[in-house]
Amino acid sequence: MITDQNLKKIIRDALSEDIGPEDVTSEATIPAESTSTAVMLAKQDLVLAGLEISRAVFHCLDPAIQVTTFAKDGDRMNAGTEIAKLSGNTRALLAGERVALNLLQHMSGIATLTAKYVEKVKGLKAEVLDTRKTLPGLRQLEKYAVRVGGGKNHRFGLYDGVLIKDNHIKASGGIIKAVERAKKKAHHMLKIEVETKTLDEVVEALGIGADIIMLDNMPIDMMREAVKLIGGRALVEASGNVTLETIWQIAETGVDFISSGSLTHSAPAADISMKIK
Amino acid sequence: MITDQNLKKIIRDALSEDIGPEDVTSEATIPAESTSTAVMLAKQDLVLAGLEISRAVFHCLDPAIQVTTFAKDGDRMNAGTEIAKLSGNTRALLAGERVALNLLQHMSGIATLTAKYVEKVKGLKAEVLDTRKTLPGLRQLEKYAVRVGGGKNHRFGLYDGVLIKDNHIKASGGIIKAVERAKKKAHHMLKIEVETKTLDEVVEALGIGADIIMLDNMPIDMMREAVKLIGGRALVEASGNVTLETIWQIAETGVDFISSGSLTHSAPAADISMKIK
Amino acid sequence: MITDQNLKKIIRDALSEDIGPEDVTSEATIPAESTSTAVMLAKQDLVLAGLEISRAVFHCLDPAIQVTTFAKDGDRMNAGTEIAKLSGNTRALLAGERVALNLLQHMSGIATLTAKYVEKVKGLKAEVLDTRKTLPGLRQLEKYAVRVGGGKNHRFGLYDGVLIKDNHIKASGGIIKAVERAKKKAHHMLKIEVETKTLDEVVEALGIGADIIMLDNMPIDMMREAVKLIGGRALVEASGNVTLETIWQIAETGVDFISSGSLTHSAPAADISMKIK
Amino acid sequence: MITDQNLKKIIRDALSEDIGPEDVTSEATIPAESTSTAVMLAKQDLVLAGLEISRAVFHCLDPAIQVTTFAKDGDRMNAGTEIAKLSGNTRALLAGERVALNLLQHMSGIATLTAKYVEKVKGLKAEVLDTRKTLPGLRQLEKYAVRVGGGKNHRFGLYDGVLIKDNHIKASGGIIKAVERAKKKAHHMLKIEVETKTLDEVVEALGIGADIIMLDNMPIDMMREAVKLIGGRALVEASGNVTLETIWQIAETGVDFISSGSLTHSAPAADISMKIK
Amino acid sequence: MITDQNLKKIIRDALSEDIGPEDVTSEATIPAESTSTAVMLAKQDLVLAGLEISRAVFHCLDPAIQVTTFAKDGDRMNAGTEIAKLSGNTRALLAGERVALNLLQHMSGIATLTAKYVEKVKGLKAEVLDTRKTLPGLRQLEKYAVRVGGGKNHRFGLYDGVLIKDNHIKASGGIIKAVERAKKKAHHMLKIEVETKTLDEVVEALGIGADIIMLDNMPIDMMREAVKLIGGRALVEASGNVTLETIWQIAETGVDFISSGSLTHSAPAADISMKIK
Amino acid sequence: MITDQNLKKIIRDALSEDIGPEDVTSEATIPAESTSTAVMLAKQDLVLAGLEISRAVFHCLDPAIQVTTFAKDGDRMNAGTEIAKLSGNTRALLAGERVALNLLQHMSGIATLTAKYVEKVKGLKAEVLDTRKTLPGLRQLEKYAVRVGGGKNHRFGLYDGVLIKDNHIKASGGIIKAVERAKKKAHHMLKIEVETKTLDEVVEALGIGADIIMLDNMPIDMMREAVKLIGGRALVEASGNVTLETIWQIAETGVDFISSGSLTHSAPAADISMKIK
Repeated sequence: MITDQNLKKIIRDALSEDIGPEDVTSEATIPAESTSTAVMLAKQDLVLAGLEISRAVFHCLDPAIQVTTFAKDGDRMNAGTEIAKLSGNTRALLAGERVALNLLQHMSGIATLTAKYVEKVKGLKAEVLDTRKTLPGLRQLEKYAVRVGGGKNHRFGLYDGVLIKDNHIKASGGIIKAVERAKKKAHHMLKIEVETKTLDEVVEALGIGADIIMLDNMPIDMMREAVKLIGGRALVEASGNVTLETIWQIAETGVDFISSGSLTHSAPAADISMKIK
Repeated sequence: MITDQNLKKIIRDALSEDIGPEDVTSEATIPAESTSTAVMLAKQDLVLAGLEISRAVFHCLDPAIQVTTFAKDGDRMNAGTEIAKLSGNTRALLAGERVALNLLQHMSGIATLTAKYVEKVKGLKAEVLDTRKTLPGLRQLEKYAVRVGGGKNHRFGLYDGVLIKDNHIKASGGIIKAVERAKKKAHHMLKIEVETKTLDEVVEALGIGADIIMLDNMPIDMMREAVKLIGGRALVEASGNVTLETIWQIAETGVDFISSGSLTHSAPAADISMKIK
Repeated sequence: MITDQNLKKIIRDALSEDIGPEDVTSEATIPAESTSTAVMLAKQDLVLAGLEISRAVFHCLDPAIQVTTFAKDGDRMNAGTEIAKLSGNTRALLAGERVALNLLQHMSGIATLTAKYVEKVKGLKAEVLDTRKTLPGLRQLEKYAVRVGGGKNHRFGLYDGVLIKDNHIKASGGIIKAVERAKKKAHHMLKIEVETKTLDEVVEALGIGADIIMLDNMPIDMMREAVKLIGGRALVEASGNVTLETIWQIAETGVDFISSGSLTHSAPAADISMKIK
Repeated sequence: MITDQNLKKIIRDALSEDIGPEDVTSEATIPAESTSTAVMLAKQDLVLAGLEISRAVFHCLDPAIQVTTFAKDGDRMNAGTEIAKLSGNTRALLAGERVALNLLQHMSGIATLTAKYVEKVKGLKAEVLDTRKTLPGLRQLEKYAVRVGGGKNHRFGLYDGVLIKDNHIKASGGIIKAVERAKKKAHHMLKIEVETKTLDEVVEALGIGADIIMLDNMPIDMMREAVKLIGGRALVEASGNVTLETIWQIAETGVDFISSGSLTHSAPAADISMKIK
Repeated sequence: MITDQNLKKIIRDALSEDIGPEDVTSEATIPAESTSTAVMLAKQDLVLAGLEISRAVFHCLDPAIQVTTFAKDGDRMNAGTEIAKLSGNTRALLAGERVALNLLQHMSGIATLTAKYVEKVKGLKAEVLDTRKTLPGLRQLEKYAVRVGGGKNHRFGLYDGVLIKDNHIKASGGIIKAVERAKKKAHHMLKIEVETKTLDEVVEALGIGADIIMLDNMPIDMMREAVKLIGGRALVEASGNVTLETIWQIAETGVDFISSGSLTHSAPAADISMKIK
Repeated sequence: MITDQNLKKIIRDALSEDIGPEDVTSEATIPAESTSTAVMLAKQDLVLAGLEISRAVFHCLDPAIQVTTFAKDGDRMNAGTEIAKLSGNTRALLAGERVALNLLQHMSGIATLTAKYVEKVKGLKAEVLDTRKTLPGLRQLEKYAVRVGGGKNHRFGLYDGVLIKDNHIKASGGIIKAVERAKKKAHHMLKIEVETKTLDEVVEALGIGADIIMLDNMPIDMMREAVKLIGGRALVEASGNVTLETIWQIAETGVDFISSGSLTHSAPAADISMKIK
């Protein structure tokens, strides 16, 4: 999981973005010594993700705030369930509220959507993967939320996996050339994945020894053919046109992984509120 | 708009998050001196936002990349329209692709959704506002995208507007006390807005001289009543349960502003691709 | 008030600027385990500001240093009064001394000068305001010191108030055009202030609905006329040629605010020493 | 002089502090493509310092702004003299104005005050020194301004000179012990200075081989005695109670250096304006 | 290779560490406008690495400095060969000299030592690998220098390869448990390497499907046995006791990779000077 | 010694460089709640340096890790001696291991080599000095290790000593001109050192009043002559061709200091391991 120092940096920057020179409303209306108790509440059915991170937001503002959690990341909750109780300095509670909720709602939104995809392929071997289609600065948190929702992570960035896509194939002169170069130059702990759009490309990638073959936007029948053709000699990832409606069909072709950018870039925020009692 | 130095910081951090020590695939498969031409393409109908920011991503990696744009922020585009052509070093084009698209797709997604809301209230005086429900580090870009889509911005953070919400009212002992303190302590250039849930609260806020009154989650009839009651003596903002289905009704009550967190926290990414020719 | 993380950043940067690689004198002459007790002393009459910030300087170097304070920010002290006693590691005490005093002397200097201005207008409604004429990186601390001295803050920066000055008026084609644009484009929580130099301009600003009117460098008589003319329909700020000699006269015209850059840019440091006992 | 990267950091932080998310007034009232010409004007007699730094402020916002300077740092100017002409994007000119002036006024204020002290001791050998009594983050700029005004710099921080003050002497058990330790432990390129308050201490410091002897708050007669006693065997610095009234007398005792914190911590800002033509 | 922004950060931090507030010698002795020509000279036989990085050091100080290179990274040079000629502002040349040489000497030292190891195993299939035994902040530059010297990189950090060492095996309860967990939890693009000390462990690692087997500190005979036993079903890395004397023997056992921390943590700096002509 | 905040910055950056988004091996193979005890062991004879810094690495990851040390910096240890025992969370122990060891091995390597040089000149007055030939970002730690090994530090950077080298002499027009300028412009607490290559230059430097004279690459006889010639009127530093073989001879000429870049740029890492028990 994200290191403590990276998490603190995200939180500090977020608080700085929101508070700026000062929270003028609380400074003006609430006495410095006022204390309150607040409750975080799920306002829709959701899979919770980011609770410890939300706690860290408040502790970054005031380590004395007491946070009692009634759930943990990965829990499925119904609308109306209390998530946590917070007690402490009122100004700090209100200054942290929006940042904490923004993170918690976004991460729970991703976990909730991921869980729906995972649910759809239950019983099949295919695992649901995220992509690099994440928001700047939030990749680690978003990928964590995918795991909380039951998905698996694809590589974290351009540095921890060789993924030869159509653009690389065009620019390097074909699949064979590209894979040969990758085998020679990339370090020995990284697997090599090749994006393919036709069965011919699948054969080519397999022949040159790709560790993983991505089937990009293939029709279901072609995918099934490709999986048969590969026959376990490489891992197989399906990509493109993955929706809650299509994922079962795709999984049913026998692929090992199904990846979708929607998990991270289009998950609506989960509705969660925080109210002072 | 966002200052150049803030924008560069966001871009540099995003590139660093994605590239890490190096783009192993391009380093391995593509010759250092290779050049290519790529095209950015709208793959759905959308309102474009973030084009200049995407250009800045590539220029951050290599100032020699030539970017020819065929559109500008705010343009409505149909699926299949070319957005821009990029020519230059292939490794730089591929290293910047994902970060540029992640920003462009997210911002265009927000602009596209905002435009739908704005469209719904055409002809009425109500303006569509965003909120502070934004993602950490991205508030300025997201609020810019709202403006591009035809919306207006609410305050940028806790520092540029006094917004007394239910939590402040509870913690400070009522609307009157809260507003009186705010008038005395907050600086003289900030207006004071009060969140109300009942007509009694509206009356109270009006009486103590609130500049703006927020009607939070009120039924349509109560809203209409409130607007009448206020009679132009304060600006009126409606908030809560704002959807594409409900917004016309809300606007029709005569409020000045309608704010919705969905514009920023739940807009699905717009589908845009970049392909090497 | 300034957030804890912003304060720590200022302190850490200040210590780094002063200490550099190491405090060669203390490292060489004082044993690592030596402990001492020191006293901070007011060497002139002053209004204290920055005491908690000074404490934070020492705690940033060594959390074990014990600081006993005999006063608090806002206290008026006579020359010779002890402000605080510090006990702990000698090297840390000496390494923090200069940075702590530099901040405390500067902030107390501002509070002391502000208090003199505020004293001069006692009994009149005018409030004494600071400006954006502050030193880079120190604005929040300086504006805090103004408040401690009994003054009020003007806006914190270019982002939390629309202040249309002569330069904006020239560049946008007149007061009316400028205010109309501001009303349309700036967000609804910011008030609009217009700088005026003549009664005609006052009339123009009032007519177009400025929330606040600044009377810039006007003769006393013209100010009095302007206040009468405005008649409570807008707030009035006087600016220019504000000295301890002129401020009573200015306040006596009936303006709401009197702003002066001197509070922050020309307050002499208050004389405070720290001596090991 | 300050390195380019340090200067840029100061400027970027200052602009960020002042502009925040955006300059709402200029964004609202001035068209993005508007250009203007502005003039910087001395409004009092002054010694100019910081002109190139002010230029860098504008170029940090927009490298296309043309700055024509009519003077250079160190020039004595009369009230009413034009300092520079700036042409370029209006929004950038106005966004940079305050930060540029805040620096220029502060630095020119220091140079102007320093020049007055230097003037007073003209013809005598004593050089006017600054101290470490500077504002956090601004030490290099303030010390540069002292040089521009004709003064000399004392050490830059705790790292580039061994200065054994009363607090060190107390904590280390006397002058002799302190100097012996410093000679053994500090590196060989740093001179050792000892603060003395009595002639006995002067003798002690001289005997143990101090390179420089500081006469702290001594009466004029004692200083004269001390200088005679030292007889050129060490450099002599006078410190304490240095004013424009006393400095001649002090210099006349024959000391090599006279240091004063006032040069930096209590110099009033020089009055300089910037107006669009 | 290292991204431009990471490189600039290293250079800026290094210059800041060395120059601090200012280069007092050059500021004092060399006129601001002085220009010079300097030559970089190899003073021992070496393999050059870091030349472009050295150029970047000078350009960071002054983009106008002209650097003419007579060689490129990877070139073998004899003592006495000129490496580059630099012309430009003398102060900038001298301010950058030490940082540029420190980097160039360190990186060339690594490349030179690596080349000696690589030379020793010429004709055998074994490739020479570096490790994570690098200096804080310099890993990317050191690993680049290894490549320049003809070596290959091992993983860059804890994030781009699963390497199960003796400590992990102990803490997780054995090789089988550790590998099973890694297969389930780590993402699908990372290979799994297991450190073994005995043939039994080799068999165990092979059985559970390790992609790479590290033979740690094994006697030559056991290594040969292990390679035979593995029979191409996994890649093999030898580690421990790798010296210029032992590497041929190790390589001759048939391992795929030989890794050594010495390449980076114990390579003596290559002797390179820079002289003004 | 290095300030706490600088040390933490080095450690945080080093951990970030090594761990990146996450330690995939430990996350996958070791349960989050697992605890272990590990031992650090000297695997060669060495002088220990950096132990507290290594402790800080682990505490930066997890303040609950218990570190019991069996030695302290400066201790001479034989191969096989236990240095410290660490108990706590297994993932944190393994995530910190490499960074802690990389620092400890590098610093102990420097201390060990320095101690050998110091040992060689025992009984003579010459002190062994380091140089500015250090690695970017690590100067303070390396110079600390030199002190631990019994050496003394030369200046820390370009800011805390005037060292006029051959390049300065050429660029400023001779020793006399250079020294005269330095005396006039550099601040009064810095000594002036001049690099000389001939006896004529020694005479010249002495005549103009250099505080320290560096004898650069002189033959032993010429050095002896120079020392005699200088006769205590300046400190004398020998530089160039300093090896364990030559240092006695050099010291024997009577110089005060002998400086060598090898102490920092070419000290092989000391062999230290960390094993879970």
